[in-house]
Amino acid sequence: MNCVGHQAPGLWTHPRDQSWRYQDPDYWIELARILERGLFDGLFLADVLGVYDVFGESPAAALRNAAQIPVNDPLMLVPLMAGATRHLGFGVTCSVSYEHPYPFARRMSTLDHLTRGRIGWNIVTSYLDSAARNMGLDRQVGHDDRYEFAEEYLEVCYKLWEGSWKSGAVRRDKTAGIFADPAKVHAIGHEGPAFRVPGIHLCEPSPQRTPVLYQAGASRRGKAFAGKHAECVFVAAPSQKILRQYVHDIRQSATEQGRDPSQILIFAMFTIVVDETEDAARRKLADFRSHVSVEAALTLLSGWTGIDFAPYRPDDVVRYIENDAGRSFLESFTTADPDRLWTVREVAEWVGIGGRGPVAVGTPAQVADMMEDWIDQTGLDGFNLTYVLAHETFESIVDLVVPELQRRGRYKTSYSDGTLREKLFGGNARLGETHPAVRAGAAVRG
Amino acid sequence: MNCVGHQAPGLWTHPRDQSWRYQDPDYWIELARILERGLFDGLFLADVLGVYDVFGESPAAALRNAAQIPVNDPLMLVPLMAGATRHLGFGVTCSVSYEHPYPFARRMSTLDHLTRGRIGWNIVTSYLDSAARNMGLDRQVGHDDRYEFAEEYLEVCYKLWEGSWKSGAVRRDKTAGIFADPAKVHAIGHEGPAFRVPGIHLCEPSPQRTPVLYQAGASRRGKAFAGKHAECVFVAAPSQKILRQYVHDIRQSATEQGRDPSQILIFAMFTIVVDETEDAARRKLADFRSHVSVEAALTLLSGWTGIDFAPYRPDDVVRYIENDAGRSFLESFTTADPDRLWTVREVAEWVGIGGRGPVAVGTPAQVADMMEDWIDQTGLDGFNLTYVLAHETFESIVDLVVPELQRRGRYKTSYSDGTLREKLFGGNARLGETHPAVRAGAAVRG
Repeated sequence: MNCVGHQAPGLWTHPRDQSWRYQDPDYWIELARILERGLFDGLFLADVLGVYDVFGESPAAALRNAAQIPVNDPLMLVPLMAGATRHLGFGVTCSVSYEHPYPFARRMSTLDHLTRGRIGWNIVTSYLDSAARNMGLDRQVGHDDRYEFAEEYLEVCYKLWEGSWKSGAVRRDKTAGIFADPAKVHAIGHEGPAFRVPGIHLCEPSPQRTPVLYQAGASRRGKAFAGKHAECVFVAAPSQKILRQYVHDIRQSATEQGRDPSQILIFAMFTIVVDETEDAARRKLADFRSHVSVEAALTLLSGWTGIDFAPYRPDDVVRYIENDAGRSFLESFTTADPDRLWTVREVAEWVGIGGRGPVAVGTPAQVADMMEDWIDQTGLDGFNLTYVLAHETFESIVDLVVPELQRRGRYKTSYSDGTLREKLFGGNARLGETHPAVRAGAAVRG
Repeated sequence: MNCVGHQAPGLWTHPRDQSWRYQDPDYWIELARILERGLFDGLFLADVLGVYDVFGESPAAALRNAAQIPVNDPLMLVPLMAGATRHLGFGVTCSVSYEHPYPFARRMSTLDHLTRGRIGWNIVTSYLDSAARNMGLDRQVGHDDRYEFAEEYLEVCYKLWEGSWKSGAVRRDKTAGIFADPAKVHAIGHEGPAFRVPGIHLCEPSPQRTPVLYQAGASRRGKAFAGKHAECVFVAAPSQKILRQYVHDIRQSATEQGRDPSQILIFAMFTIVVDETEDAARRKLADFRSHVSVEAALTLLSGWTGIDFAPYRPDDVVRYIENDAGRSFLESFTTADPDRLWTVREVAEWVGIGGRGPVAVGTPAQVADMMEDWIDQTGLDGFNLTYVLAHETFESIVDLVVPELQRRGRYKTSYSDGTLREKLFGGNARLGETHPAVRAGAAVRG
């Protein structure tokens, strides 16, 4: 996220943490180079367009703790980091709620051109009321209605990306004086409840046309949406049991939509604290924990669940949960160990390092064992690694864990050529025929 | 502009022209480095969010000729080029008509951070009906209403940039665990006819806070808007007489708004065709003219004026003009030489090289003479140089004209330090107290 404190509330205060430099272009160039050195598929940039103001009914705690505020535009980082790398992909969160799809589709096509096909889009429908209010709305649109709206938003984008410019439309023929063949450029003629977009896409086809599509919804409606549209899914679960169920549900949803379930890659949130010895790693974790800000963690938790945690004392036991978002979040704890009672402080500290996902602590071999086990036991495809300290966490993974995984034959030893989609799936730079984007495109061309 | 054919219709077909590479990141990095080598203040990126479909009532001619279509997002180029330069400024056209000011203000703050204070914003209200239609509107909002709307749009941005975060709000204090002081971060509480934005700005103050403000409106309402808001104004006029009047009107408008008229920089569109000898330069121009596409020029002209030139034959004489935009455009020709009759083809060819501005052809000394004369006779501050061939035009200016101007003491010999605003005006990175942005900001803080 283009901010100071992302998933590790309070850790920006650690002497070695660099995340306070988020507004410095060199900070991002350094990060991109570390990840490319470690052969990471991509860098995922989350985003919110609002502030966490549920805690204490004010943004004060968020501001004090830099808890996802200030938060700069993530898309602007992509061309910067693309200029410093050759292979690294970029998955960026953009909400369908706050921009018209016509300029948005142009922006993504532009990024796909400028990155030479390394852009991905994490489709979100947003969750902070504060964002909606600053766009002139009273609150969020209802959860399921947001998915209806997102369906139409995607349809407009798909028509523009996949349907407007036929393959071969661009001739670039200096001698004949013809850049594009107008007969092969189609107006999309979209008319729907939310959008009316009669014209052509403003961009010629980019390497991938449609960016690699990411999604992260864990609700029933979210999983159906992912099954239909997503090529990659981000999940977060504290236990293999919960994760196995997620993976199963998402693949089943894809099957129901007529898609090949093995063609959806599922990445789980995962935090690594690694050192040469187990003792050193455990000391590191203890040091990190001492920098967790309980206030900042509860600020995030309040935003995610909609429950204001400010009135509760740190030693209060979390006995019940008041709404759906809170329930799905707090099930994380109870499911992992149903007999244990959690205090507010313990929940905050647990969120503080690793969020809803597991934390692997130990030597490179121990961490690699745990990663292999999670992959093998759950059907997961890979990990969405969080950082505790910027950029130390990723440096330690690249230097210690990646070589261990390579020795075991569980990690690539070089990048393959091509776009992000080709790197992730092999095969084509463009979406396959069964994907709804390609079908929407075909409908435009008639 | 992030496109193939910008101001020189047809010239993309010239064997030496590189503009067909507009979607290649290296194309832009090369350009940025050429301009920085030449100590240019900045690079100005124009934009439209639509297609020129007035000519022949179809986008076909525009597509055939790459006449400002395809057209990619200009903002994405800024971080890319900023990463390859240290001093070059970036002025980017963004329309107030197509995006909510809340995310827009964040995007500009982000760019100001990432460029370390080198961002400028060319405020436009848009002119293509095709853009409005694809945003779900039937046509453009009326011209003067667009300026009312733009006033409120700016007010929201000003409050966010100048008023929300007080100086000193950000403490970045790891020891105390305080990133920002919430008492110094203000909700802007904006309620207006078009926008309701209650909250705080999502970004901490960037080096310039408000980007350097550019404007290009030549209408009466446009000049009043420029006098109130603009720090830099782009103009285009074919004669010194017309230009002198523009410069006078804009400075007078600034005076009427209580601003120091010398603190507005006015840049005129200007095209340079230079070579070691006058003969060589004239041969170059003739070669360039032979690549002008009359169809492409008329496509642009039709879009600018709203008059469909497709039904007219190339030898038809342009006798009268049917609307305001057409009149102000075609006055360009008649004023320069009131007794001459222009054919459609001649107008197109004139537009083809240099647009509405003068074309300086000759040796470095001749070109420099003409530039000095235009500056001295009109009260102009500088030039907005167009290219005929990408990037040859700018390379020839940097290699031949810049040294000549430096010898004459009319051009800087090195960059000064600081932000774009400091480079342009000396003094402060931030706007002065008399600017309406600063007044809007002060009102937020109470």
